[in-house]
Amino acid sequence: MTLRADGRSAAQLRDITITRGWSTQAEGSALIEFGNTRVLCTASFTQGVPRWLKGEGTGWVTAEYAMLPRATNTRNSREAVKGKVSGRTHEISRLIGRSLRAVVDTKQLGENTIVLDCDVLQADGGTRTAAITGAYVALAEAIEWARGEKILKANAKVLTDSVAAISVGIIDGTPMLDLPYEEDVRAETDMNVVVTGSGDFVEVQGTAEGAPFKRDELDALLDLALIGTTELAQIQTETLKKSK
Amino acid sequence: MTLRADGRSAAQLRDITITRGWSTQAEGSALIEFGNTRVLCTASFTQGVPRWLKGEGTGWVTAEYAMLPRATNTRNSREAVKGKVSGRTHEISRLIGRSLRAVVDTKQLGENTIVLDCDVLQADGGTRTAAITGAYVALAEAIEWARGEKILKANAKVLTDSVAAISVGIIDGTPMLDLPYEEDVRAETDMNVVVTGSGDFVEVQGTAEGAPFKRDELDALLDLALIGTTELAQIQTETLKKSK
Amino acid sequence: MTLRADGRSAAQLRDITITRGWSTQAEGSALIEFGNTRVLCTASFTQGVPRWLKGEGTGWVTAEYAMLPRATNTRNSREAVKGKVSGRTHEISRLIGRSLRAVVDTKQLGENTIVLDCDVLQADGGTRTAAITGAYVALAEAIEWARGEKILKANAKVLTDSVAAISVGIIDGTPMLDLPYEEDVRAETDMNVVVTGSGDFVEVQGTAEGAPFKRDELDALLDLALIGTTELAQIQTETLKKSK
Amino acid sequence: MTLRADGRSAAQLRDITITRGWSTQAEGSALIEFGNTRVLCTASFTQGVPRWLKGEGTGWVTAEYAMLPRATNTRNSREAVKGKVSGRTHEISRLIGRSLRAVVDTKQLGENTIVLDCDVLQADGGTRTAAITGAYVALAEAIEWARGEKILKANAKVLTDSVAAISVGIIDGTPMLDLPYEEDVRAETDMNVVVTGSGDFVEVQGTAEGAPFKRDELDALLDLALIGTTELAQIQTETLKKSK
Amino acid sequence: MTLRADGRSAAQLRDITITRGWSTQAEGSALIEFGNTRVLCTASFTQGVPRWLKGEGTGWVTAEYAMLPRATNTRNSREAVKGKVSGRTHEISRLIGRSLRAVVDTKQLGENTIVLDCDVLQADGGTRTAAITGAYVALAEAIEWARGEKILKANAKVLTDSVAAISVGIIDGTPMLDLPYEEDVRAETDMNVVVTGSGDFVEVQGTAEGAPFKRDELDALLDLALIGTTELAQIQTETLKKSK
Amino acid sequence: MTLRADGRSAAQLRDITITRGWSTQAEGSALIEFGNTRVLCTASFTQGVPRWLKGEGTGWVTAEYAMLPRATNTRNSREAVKGKVSGRTHEISRLIGRSLRAVVDTKQLGENTIVLDCDVLQADGGTRTAAITGAYVALAEAIEWARGEKILKANAKVLTDSVAAISVGIIDGTPMLDLPYEEDVRAETDMNVVVTGSGDFVEVQGTAEGAPFKRDELDALLDLALIGTTELAQIQTETLKKSK
Repeated sequence: MTLRADGRSAAQLRDITITRGWSTQAEGSALIEFGNTRVLCTASFTQGVPRWLKGEGTGWVTAEYAMLPRATNTRNSREAVKGKVSGRTHEISRLIGRSLRAVVDTKQLGENTIVLDCDVLQADGGTRTAAITGAYVALAEAIEWARGEKILKANAKVLTDSVAAISVGIIDGTPMLDLPYEEDVRAETDMNVVVTGSGDFVEVQGTAEGAPFKRDELDALLDLALIGTTELAQIQTETLKKSK
Repeated sequence: MTLRADGRSAAQLRDITITRGWSTQAEGSALIEFGNTRVLCTASFTQGVPRWLKGEGTGWVTAEYAMLPRATNTRNSREAVKGKVSGRTHEISRLIGRSLRAVVDTKQLGENTIVLDCDVLQADGGTRTAAITGAYVALAEAIEWARGEKILKANAKVLTDSVAAISVGIIDGTPMLDLPYEEDVRAETDMNVVVTGSGDFVEVQGTAEGAPFKRDELDALLDLALIGTTELAQIQTETLKKSK
Repeated sequence: MTLRADGRSAAQLRDITITRGWSTQAEGSALIEFGNTRVLCTASFTQGVPRWLKGEGTGWVTAEYAMLPRATNTRNSREAVKGKVSGRTHEISRLIGRSLRAVVDTKQLGENTIVLDCDVLQADGGTRTAAITGAYVALAEAIEWARGEKILKANAKVLTDSVAAISVGIIDGTPMLDLPYEEDVRAETDMNVVVTGSGDFVEVQGTAEGAPFKRDELDALLDLALIGTTELAQIQTETLKKSK
Repeated sequence: MTLRADGRSAAQLRDITITRGWSTQAEGSALIEFGNTRVLCTASFTQGVPRWLKGEGTGWVTAEYAMLPRATNTRNSREAVKGKVSGRTHEISRLIGRSLRAVVDTKQLGENTIVLDCDVLQADGGTRTAAITGAYVALAEAIEWARGEKILKANAKVLTDSVAAISVGIIDGTPMLDLPYEEDVRAETDMNVVVTGSGDFVEVQGTAEGAPFKRDELDALLDLALIGTTELAQIQTETLKKSK
Repeated sequence: MTLRADGRSAAQLRDITITRGWSTQAEGSALIEFGNTRVLCTASFTQGVPRWLKGEGTGWVTAEYAMLPRATNTRNSREAVKGKVSGRTHEISRLIGRSLRAVVDTKQLGENTIVLDCDVLQADGGTRTAAITGAYVALAEAIEWARGEKILKANAKVLTDSVAAISVGIIDGTPMLDLPYEEDVRAETDMNVVVTGSGDFVEVQGTAEGAPFKRDELDALLDLALIGTTELAQIQTETLKKSK
Repeated sequence: MTLRADGRSAAQLRDITITRGWSTQAEGSALIEFGNTRVLCTASFTQGVPRWLKGEGTGWVTAEYAMLPRATNTRNSREAVKGKVSGRTHEISRLIGRSLRAVVDTKQLGENTIVLDCDVLQADGGTRTAAITGAYVALAEAIEWARGEKILKANAKVLTDSVAAISVGIIDGTPMLDLPYEEDVRAETDMNVVVTGSGDFVEVQGTAEGAPFKRDELDALLDLALIGTTELAQIQTETLKKSK
């Protein structure tokens, strides 16, 4: 019985592709695809930290998310032209930053800064979860680069774990994994879950889009999310094994 | 055994005070206090809806959150002077709006708009949860007002339920309810939970501030949150029974 | 013969209430009420001065005024959301700053900064004059605090005098004191007068709203204003005698 | 006994020059000089009014003031480049607009708009008073133009009076008229007075720069200001008699 | 004799790749590469025109250019975060718009709007010329799409010609074609030339970076540019022959 | 045969007037007129350079262009009020800066900064070319001033040449020099050419407004431009010979 327009079962991810080293300019980079959603993630590694952190002996990791104006089905005004970043963009940038910082030991990073840029080239639902998952690969590449450059010691254990994210939602009463745009708009409840490689939670953000949800629905969604993030963690590991 | 600096037990709320009708200008208003946190919530009811909603026969509810510059222990720059709203402010405004819309039947509201302004006069942790809880009272007052003015029919069932919110967190390994600022900064995991009067979830936002959290910790936090929101729902009901 | 809607005589102030120490966060604070007009004034005392004043041995006092969106009878857009401060807001902020600096000996203040925030919680005319009058109380409290903290010497004479302000206007040909909103919009001439405790002028701002005004009208308005500011100075003194 | 660096007596204006019709593009214009202060005033007459005034049968007069970056002795950043108009600029623009509206009968103007632009080409004190005085000439020219174009009826009495402005101040205890920059910075009290051709007040803005001022000082300054504005009114009348 | 670091001769283009139909969301799109420079060009076709063009019977074509923060060797701040578009970005957006409009017959386009977005994913010199060249392909695709959708008539001749652009410069006295970043910074004179498929000029922008240039140098640069644009026109034609 | 509305022949400039020393405040200044186009150019000389240039031993020259709101036939909104500088303004500011830097030896200037402000008081076509031509005179004056003040050595050869600019265009098939507004809007091709006193090119910016232009048309326009800039260079030289 096919429940979903794209033929997937409820607990199945879309086709996931991660192309590491996509950029020849950045210290780390990955082009990640969750089906038609495509996000270019770059990690910019610079020595030194913002002024307010100087002398603390710890590093800084931050993220910025954005969408190209025609990533979506109809064109959105460019935020730079409007002169301000939308609440949604801010919110997602902050989420990505927190998610990645959860697996970074900033003491081990030393007084260095990593900026993660996640630019959505094409959007079909799940852009923030793809961004987090891809940003982890770019981040890992940048740290590898810094070790190669002897900026970080060979044995610096900067990353304490991996991190990946997926969306889940209840559609027509059924919990489903990894929602494309057309499912996302129909979901009664929508949840983004960020999980470490070890299976612990970093962020759980559930929202009742239609009706408030019950405790057992919340439980079912969390179970489903963990299936997705486990699979994403494996893809991340395999990707990082390949040479750039 | 007293675990907490203010003498509360882990599952105990701070002193909660809701003064309805605080403003003589707004259609609905409430000054809400969670301990030292004080938020002034007003509901502005206007006939008509934004242009993009005209002719749909449905209403619109939105919210704006802000903090006075000296609500906190040290002064923050005024956002109006900086010329932009911070990511945090945007994010909380959006959260409040979604939370209140979850209990509004916009068809029953008709083509009317309610804007909820939540201005934090004094901040000591939990400002967003106090804002949601107080905004519900202001919203209910404004709907009552509109019925009195015959803008809404006497039997229009605009509110489908009540809604309240509370913060929970794990501090030194112990789940605790309703965190003041000094606990909030020490929490390993921090969660804001928005719950209807019937006990269903509207929003669940959990964040690992220190270490990622496990499934059983998540469950314990949700249990605690429901204790708090149940009590808040009772206080809201009692407050609304009093004459303005 | 009652001339005024609220039963006052032409030379009578509205009910004036000043609650000092309203904020538990700021070094100085006062909630001031001129009838239905309510302004929360806080004074933030910080050691050090802006860079351009460093090494001069003098302090800095500045002010910011703002109005909550629903302080007034209909909601105004939030200035932070519009991304700019209106001309009116700027103008009043500058007026408050100048008025308070007129009674501060910045040499005695030493290299310290005091920022006065005057946020109008509810507006019914005279918000700028209430703000100046309340800001003086917050300022005095903050200086008291700094003496207690030994940041200022016990004998530092920072305040050279007190300062208060009131509005006056000509309505239907009659000069009147302390105009609420409904009188303010009807006034032919409108004047805000800032006066020290000794009865000298700090600012005189008179504007012909309807017809230009004559010299004798100007004189009558100034006489009336001095009655009001003398009474306000007494209330300020009494308020500051009470313990916080 | 010469009191002043430029050889003037206390009650003497600087050399005043008004060149009407300076611009070949605007409906009305005047280049006004108060000594070294030079302000280009243009009046732009357009048919129609802003949307919020439509159908009221009344016109609209507004003003904008600005200073070229190198009008002053050292260069100021350009407000357009900084992306915001300063409080001072806003305040002066509002003052000019109010001053000119005081002598316009907007019913007689009909549904037409006049925008007065006052751009300071060179600044040496008194720019706002020169701007008001020059703007009146540009305004009168634009109204004359509109009569010539039959947009206004030949007998429309749009201007009810003329208006001019001058600064006065107390320097070393002596009241003085029309302060150049070097006097302005030394003044203990500074007052800008806007007066109609008939000698009535439109605006009185007095500020204690150093010490608060007494009632008799205020009186002396007003006397002096009226000497200046009477003379300016004569120069305006003569200028407008000349052909453009 | 190899003059250039990448082994090219002076009159040789870098490897040029145009992938049409790169986006599944936009009506037209092309990913264009000039060596390491990669620009994603999308064309958004919408029915209707901006208000100021309504009823004229003509269409509107406009362009926006931007660079991802980490397109370059070191990260640039995001313009949306800074809240304003730089002068350089504005200038290039305007250039792209003018260049494409030069080959569009807006009467044939009818009251339809095409927005070209050129986002530089990776930058290595020549981003504006790559953007123009790629935008033409996206534009042609969007017009093809509109014909398929019957929004444009089958015989509407919207495009009057093709258009392509290339940079040329004098390096160490030698005129060279298609400068990568490292040559661009060393060029004494730098020129961007926009040319139609028929070989006529649309834009010629030459700038003396080091020393002013002579007439014969200008001539040599124009000759070289035409070699480049002729080749680009052929590649565009071949690309558009392929199915999307 | 008179081709042009103002009676000029195709290769004839409008009346050119340069009044040097127009400002008593700036280190260098010139009011330049190309027919009805009037631009006030000031040069602000300050010791020191922006932080990013410190210690390099070289100076900095930059320019800002702006137009008064009523310089043109209908009023434009003030950029400071809109809160952003238009693309056109940015583009012209950058052009003026590049043009002047082309004749400045920044080593000879030492660590000093010159800011050129070009404010268009009245616009009738050719404002950017008048601005460049006038800015050169203001620049030369400021350098003269700095020599007089012994900030620059008497033999410092800061200016390597003079620089002037003119517009040319093809109207009804005929190349013409120095276009006023009414010709500018009718031009099929429009070119701005910046040329040194020695006759070498600094900038060539040609744009096809109507139809793309051919190589021989480009050549004819360049010939014409050189006639104009040669004459302007002579006027500049004569102006600078006069005492200020």
